[in-house]
Amino acid sequence: MKHTIYSEELVARVVAELGIPSLERATIGEVVLIARRLEELTGIPFIRMDQGVPGLPPCRVGTEAEKAALDTPAPAIYPAAEGIPELKHEASRFVKAFLDIDVSPAGCVPVTGSVTGSFGAFIACLQRDPRKDTVLFIDPGFPIQKSQLRLLGARWEQFDIHDHRGPEALRTKMEQYMASGRIAAIIYSSPNNPAWISLTESELCVVGELATKHDAIVLEDLAYFGMDFRDDFGKPFQPPFIPTVARYTDNYILMLSASKIFSYAGQRAAFIAISDALFSRRFEALAERYSGSGIFGPTLTASILYMITSGSTHSTQFGYAAMLRAATDGTLDFVAETREYARRARLMKETFERHGFHVVYDRDIEREISDGFFFTIGYGEGKRKMSCGELMSELLLYGVSSIALSTTGSDQQGIRACCSRMTDELFPLLDDRLAAFRADH
Amino acid sequence: MKHTIYSEELVARVVAELGIPSLERATIGEVVLIARRLEELTGIPFIRMDQGVPGLPPCRVGTEAEKAALDTPAPAIYPAAEGIPELKHEASRFVKAFLDIDVSPAGCVPVTGSVTGSFGAFIACLQRDPRKDTVLFIDPGFPIQKSQLRLLGARWEQFDIHDHRGPEALRTKMEQYMASGRIAAIIYSSPNNPAWISLTESELCVVGELATKHDAIVLEDLAYFGMDFRDDFGKPFQPPFIPTVARYTDNYILMLSASKIFSYAGQRAAFIAISDALFSRRFEALAERYSGSGIFGPTLTASILYMITSGSTHSTQFGYAAMLRAATDGTLDFVAETREYARRARLMKETFERHGFHVVYDRDIEREISDGFFFTIGYGEGKRKMSCGELMSELLLYGVSSIALSTTGSDQQGIRACCSRMTDELFPLLDDRLAAFRADH
Repeated sequence: MKHTIYSEELVARVVAELGIPSLERATIGEVVLIARRLEELTGIPFIRMDQGVPGLPPCRVGTEAEKAALDTPAPAIYPAAEGIPELKHEASRFVKAFLDIDVSPAGCVPVTGSVTGSFGAFIACLQRDPRKDTVLFIDPGFPIQKSQLRLLGARWEQFDIHDHRGPEALRTKMEQYMASGRIAAIIYSSPNNPAWISLTESELCVVGELATKHDAIVLEDLAYFGMDFRDDFGKPFQPPFIPTVARYTDNYILMLSASKIFSYAGQRAAFIAISDALFSRRFEALAERYSGSGIFGPTLTASILYMITSGSTHSTQFGYAAMLRAATDGTLDFVAETREYARRARLMKETFERHGFHVVYDRDIEREISDGFFFTIGYGEGKRKMSCGELMSELLLYGVSSIALSTTGSDQQGIRACCSRMTDELFPLLDDRLAAFRADH
Repeated sequence: MKHTIYSEELVARVVAELGIPSLERATIGEVVLIARRLEELTGIPFIRMDQGVPGLPPCRVGTEAEKAALDTPAPAIYPAAEGIPELKHEASRFVKAFLDIDVSPAGCVPVTGSVTGSFGAFIACLQRDPRKDTVLFIDPGFPIQKSQLRLLGARWEQFDIHDHRGPEALRTKMEQYMASGRIAAIIYSSPNNPAWISLTESELCVVGELATKHDAIVLEDLAYFGMDFRDDFGKPFQPPFIPTVARYTDNYILMLSASKIFSYAGQRAAFIAISDALFSRRFEALAERYSGSGIFGPTLTASILYMITSGSTHSTQFGYAAMLRAATDGTLDFVAETREYARRARLMKETFERHGFHVVYDRDIEREISDGFFFTIGYGEGKRKMSCGELMSELLLYGVSSIALSTTGSDQQGIRACCSRMTDELFPLLDDRLAAFRADH
């Protein structure tokens, strides 16, 4: 007799009812549907480790500034394609304050979430030179970015960085893909979704050098900006500065979302920061396609992003500008605000480890990874190691929802856990459920 | 000696300074830049008829509802891909109240402006069947929609409806394009940007019949919803109802923007309404590409639009829902609110006509067109008729900025004028400037 919370029959029935083809290969959206439906049918709450939703209240500096903007004529007036001057200025200052990188306000362009930023950037990168038709993913990564390329019908390659950490191993692995000359863009997130690894300065140096050497554009996704809590990155204009590829190449576009660092996911606010050198570089293929100057920055802004959303929500730009200003002025410590995630992650990892689970992506080369928004968990050793789909679907029976690592471009066996919805009352429940899991396995 | 406001030398210098290749072929963005720069250099204000920017304050029902939403947890939480239930419900009611058409809430999906709606819809329409690779524009139209296809590398065809009004002429013309079977989608706006013509029910019937016959999907852009002021379309659930192709085919997606009808362009709020029949139709090519069900509505929502913006700004959805509710409940007469544009347009047209100009697109078959947001103006007859670029650039010298019709897919000679920025103080100035123009030509 197993000690599950939901019976295998019930889970199978819900999976069938929802028309989900394979539980073990369920997407994040499908896992969410299963968890919600099981809660609805049984009244038993899940421990929801699936979606990466902010678990903190929205930053009030932002909402107050939005409310003030709503009382002006701004809601009636189209936002400029390149964004409001306040936001461009504050974005540039913020990048300087926390990355110690100089990007002109012109290169800081608001987008409707980083998802629109990567979508537009992919298009610009893939259209700038007919010989460069492939995006390289340093995985594991955010599945939506591959879905964007599927939508566009574009080509990509990927590798799991797990066995290629450290500058030399990473250089060797990346050269395998870069040598063809077909790589238009390189994309990764750091801290990483799903694995919460952080690329080190020495690794970023390699990525930057190869980007320059092979003329690829690095799309650095900084969704979890400053949330490597091993160092305090929250003090503006003071070291330590957040590691970034921007120190090692001119071929970069940074993506800075407000969703996690300011708990602002609902408002779809982000900006991209295009390096000054790339912003003003001319590409003949862009000039031809858009009958324009072919200059990278204006083309991406006016001929690509503007055609997709015609600017970003006006009031939200004022809100984002206010939050960036407060952070840069040192009146809002966004790193301290989000440090709560590290506390939750630490306690959750300890609970998992107490019951025989292990952290899959556990080190940045030599150093133990940070505690933060996500972590990865495996179960079993050697031949008894559980596969991604098996572990994810078995945990569901015990009332714990997660994402199989196989859906993120990882070759490792395990799941991604998000700590954002964890609350103190749920820890005893997690403990009981994992104890039951262990007793059965 | 000409009576211009700005000298030809000055205008030429500004055009050169701004790096604009050809004044006569200037895009809307370039005209705006020239006008702003000339104002800056001389201190002499333009009569700005170029951009279609709302000239009324934002709808306060919307901004108040947004402010209330900003005080909830909504700004922190990702909006659902399909939109918030309140907005879906109100959108469905609004469509019923003013079009007398039934679209389920499921088919009403918020987008970051209609521009995102058309972008996503183009992708879905062009990917649903490999034999259907072309979009047909019933022109004149909104240049951004063609720019979206250029961005995607997709094929389009177009014709100017000017000489093909009335059901029989329109049927004959459209069959020329439809017969190939390659038309994936048909797009137009009504009331029309730039010509302010409105398709009649008899013409929409033809469009609908041909869409069904040749399996094309109609994208009906209702950006100026109800702003055909010849009839009072502002009374919910009462005839007259706004003409729509949705009465004549199941193959439709309506695009309803808040930008003009609620003076809400800054917040990027719109919804698309997908017909129930189309929403639930399955396409093998969509199933293959997205490894999903291939059902049109969910694919467009979750596999296309979600990958572009990951939902629409949360607070704005609450704002739009509130405005739609107020309109449908009869407490907000959006048609009366926007009728001010008709007054301005009537006075402007009279001023132009007094000085020898004429309205280019002047009739809907037999009936004189409505006064509204835009109108079209030509000058001269026969061999002395001024071309689009000539008229636009000549008017600039007299301090009147506009858009050449040639940039909108029109074959007629003239300019588009937008009345939204016109104020009562400016009428004597317009009168003087047009008198000077006439004296010189």
